[in-house]
Amino acid sequence: MGIGDDGAILQVPEAHELVVVTDTLVEGVHFRATDAADDLGYKALAVNLSDLAAMGAVPVWALLNLTLPEADESWLGKFSDGFFSLASQHDVALVGGDTTRGPLCVSVTAGGWVSAGQALTRSGAAVSDRVWITGTIGDAALALALAEQSLANVGSETRWLLDRLHRPTPRIGIGLALYGLASAVIDISDGLLADLGQIVGASGQAGAMIETTSLPLSPAGESYPLEDRMTAALTGGDDYELCMTVPQAESDRVRRLSEEAGVPLTDIGCITARAGITLTRAGVPIAVPSRSGYEHLWPVVRERGS
Amino acid sequence: MGIGDDGAILQVPEAHELVVVTDTLVEGVHFRATDAADDLGYKALAVNLSDLAAMGAVPVWALLNLTLPEADESWLGKFSDGFFSLASQHDVALVGGDTTRGPLCVSVTAGGWVSAGQALTRSGAAVSDRVWITGTIGDAALALALAEQSLANVGSETRWLLDRLHRPTPRIGIGLALYGLASAVIDISDGLLADLGQIVGASGQAGAMIETTSLPLSPAGESYPLEDRMTAALTGGDDYELCMTVPQAESDRVRRLSEEAGVPLTDIGCITARAGITLTRAGVPIAVPSRSGYEHLWPVVRERGS
Repeated sequence: MGIGDDGAILQVPEAHELVVVTDTLVEGVHFRATDAADDLGYKALAVNLSDLAAMGAVPVWALLNLTLPEADESWLGKFSDGFFSLASQHDVALVGGDTTRGPLCVSVTAGGWVSAGQALTRSGAAVSDRVWITGTIGDAALALALAEQSLANVGSETRWLLDRLHRPTPRIGIGLALYGLASAVIDISDGLLADLGQIVGASGQAGAMIETTSLPLSPAGESYPLEDRMTAALTGGDDYELCMTVPQAESDRVRRLSEEAGVPLTDIGCITARAGITLTRAGVPIAVPSRSGYEHLWPVVRERGS
Repeated sequence: MGIGDDGAILQVPEAHELVVVTDTLVEGVHFRATDAADDLGYKALAVNLSDLAAMGAVPVWALLNLTLPEADESWLGKFSDGFFSLASQHDVALVGGDTTRGPLCVSVTAGGWVSAGQALTRSGAAVSDRVWITGTIGDAALALALAEQSLANVGSETRWLLDRLHRPTPRIGIGLALYGLASAVIDISDGLLADLGQIVGASGQAGAMIETTSLPLSPAGESYPLEDRMTAALTGGDDYELCMTVPQAESDRVRRLSEEAGVPLTDIGCITARAGITLTRAGVPIAVPSRSGYEHLWPVVRERGS
């Protein structure tokens, strides 16, 4: 039951647990001032539904905190259209939130239910588990480079890539099918290397190996140099595909799931006893690109509370 | 169980419902760049716990979305100290969130539990119910005016008022005692007139009467003109006291609750069949101050989803 602007009362089904996730998008950092309002509304919810997918939860409700430099109702209407076009696909109810004056910034919190004890986590990966990912990766990073140019008449490949950046598909159905199959799951928001690194660390494992020739790259990016596509696939964020580890003996079940769901699932490597993330090209080790981010700040907050 | 940066899995106790609330504070709108980081951390949580108090929920967990113009770990440490000083008072666990680069802005989402069917709402007020409020009101608005001046050596009254603005006390204990007693409850965040108006509207009632000489004003504001104190009490936001309606026959129970909890509760008027909010001074009708805000935008979002 939504009860107004500030809050909501919700009934969690019996024998289920609550899963909550939250993500912020800031103008100039996660999107550009010129991005379409409806795309932003769609994406602000999508990145949160992707987190729920990675935990195997059914999305149910969302809260929206929106700060806007001016009270532009036309912009807000378009934003809301984008938000609800995705919300309605997954029967997600907006149960509260606020609109305030300020620099353009969107925080969405989403909640979902999972059968008690059946939430997927990042922490169960074991040595020799295979690493699988959904869909294709690197598309959003290529699109971001494209979006920074002024493109007049773009072809269908470019439009497809831009759509991958602006309207990522949360892999809800796949997430719901992974309990009892995947040992660890994460969504690729910060880039494959960073996010697989999270699984390795949370699972108390030493490292992982990725065979770069196995990385699923989209045909739409074919006109770009292979090196750029690889770097985008390894370090580019914003793809919102799932990365999971699965015991080697279960590979056939993953292939069947892929067929049934109509979503590509690709085996790109495995968890290793050797430390760090190793990249290979046709089995030969190659250098690992570096990355940096703002993520180091979060532990500063977390440690104060422990 | 907090499980990392993006989300958490939580068990709602049997026969309980989940209550979720969310609120955003933006620099230049809700606080000033010069405000102390620890005060901001405290307040960002306090305003959300106040919403939970108004719903009669026990606060349990929080999510924090923080955008920061620079990666200032010292500032962030102080912010976290303030946040957790309040969180630990109420055993609230920080279960997730994010830190991102951007203009200074804090969104907190808080969750709590309430016995099934026992959540307080804004919608049960009936004609002739008395209107009660906790504590004193108008303090935060006076303090905001003070904070805009450069004050060198401030007296204890001024410090007290500034503390009311920067470190509001969520009335959790009172909220938990109101089930079966109050017919409607709201917290005073936008000002008494606006928030009592929310109760009137949500309850399908016509109006309310407030006797202005009954308004509980703090002794710390005594050096200000009475007219300013009244305007602050009626239209100033940020007090985070509870405003509730209670059937007239239960007034003695409210007085007993006030004594037991050690929190002042004052009868300031009643719900009326007459339309609109009527103010009186010693029984004689007086003019109602006007107000404006950004709240009209939220329905633009909400309607798209219905």
